[in-house]
Amino acid sequence: MTPTKIEHIGIAVENLDEAIKYWENVMGLKCYNIEEVADQKVKTAFFRIGEVKIELLEATSEESTIAKFIEKKGAGVHHVAFKVEDTDQALKDAEAKEVRLIDKQARRGAEDLQIGFLHPKSTLGVLTELCCEKK
Amino acid sequence: MTPTKIEHIGIAVENLDEAIKYWENVMGLKCYNIEEVADQKVKTAFFRIGEVKIELLEATSEESTIAKFIEKKGAGVHHVAFKVEDTDQALKDAEAKEVRLIDKQARRGAEDLQIGFLHPKSTLGVLTELCCEKK
Repeated sequence: MTPTKIEHIGIAVENLDEAIKYWENVMGLKCYNIEEVADQKVKTAFFRIGEVKIELLEATSEESTIAKFIEKKGAGVHHVAFKVEDTDQALKDAEAKEVRLIDKQARRGAEDLQIGFLHPKSTLGVLTELCCEKK
Repeated sequence: MTPTKIEHIGIAVENLDEAIKYWENVMGLKCYNIEEVADQKVKTAFFRIGEVKIELLEATSEESTIAKFIEKKGAGVHHVAFKVEDTDQALKDAEAKEVRLIDKQARRGAEDLQIGFLHPKSTLGVLTELCCEKK
């Protein structure tokens, strides 16, 4: 696996509207997309800064992993997403190096990316997303 | 404040040597600098990915904020650093918007950057570093 850039930083927030205001008014960024990802039980908001995106994630259900994350660790950085050439291949590469996978195969994420997660127990605590554009 | 890019992502690690191996062998990045920042009681290792750096931080003392962070939250993403035009001005801009500052004035960080931190209680849980090159 050779990721070419950080695609986005995922940030768990308690209230998406309040968080959008903070990132726009204090940090000076502009929200360009709001999207609900039903199967992940989240509502997301996106900002661009250089070649990287900031993805804010609000849980839409108490069973969302975002709700559980906030309960355990508080709001803040939830995951880091790396752009790879091919998500399925990168997941296989990681598994071959004894990394525990959350996703055995790529699945559809926000912004129509093909995404897969590595387990933070295998990545020194960094919940790691691998992603590529839909082929 | 209008940050132009993510300068780096700071990641708290328990063991720097082990973490360097992970980021090189599994994630395919190359460590280009190892540096001790005595007044922050940390040893750091840097990797480049696109326009962003990954900064690994290992505590060199139990009193280091990195040691306290790991004790409380576990290893993982510690802070996100945004490149700004002028760190002192950006700190003033943030304070004017009622953000609580950790640093009232810029100070010297790793890689000779002028850095200043915003308090995560004011930034929705994201420990935020502002930085610029030395003037």
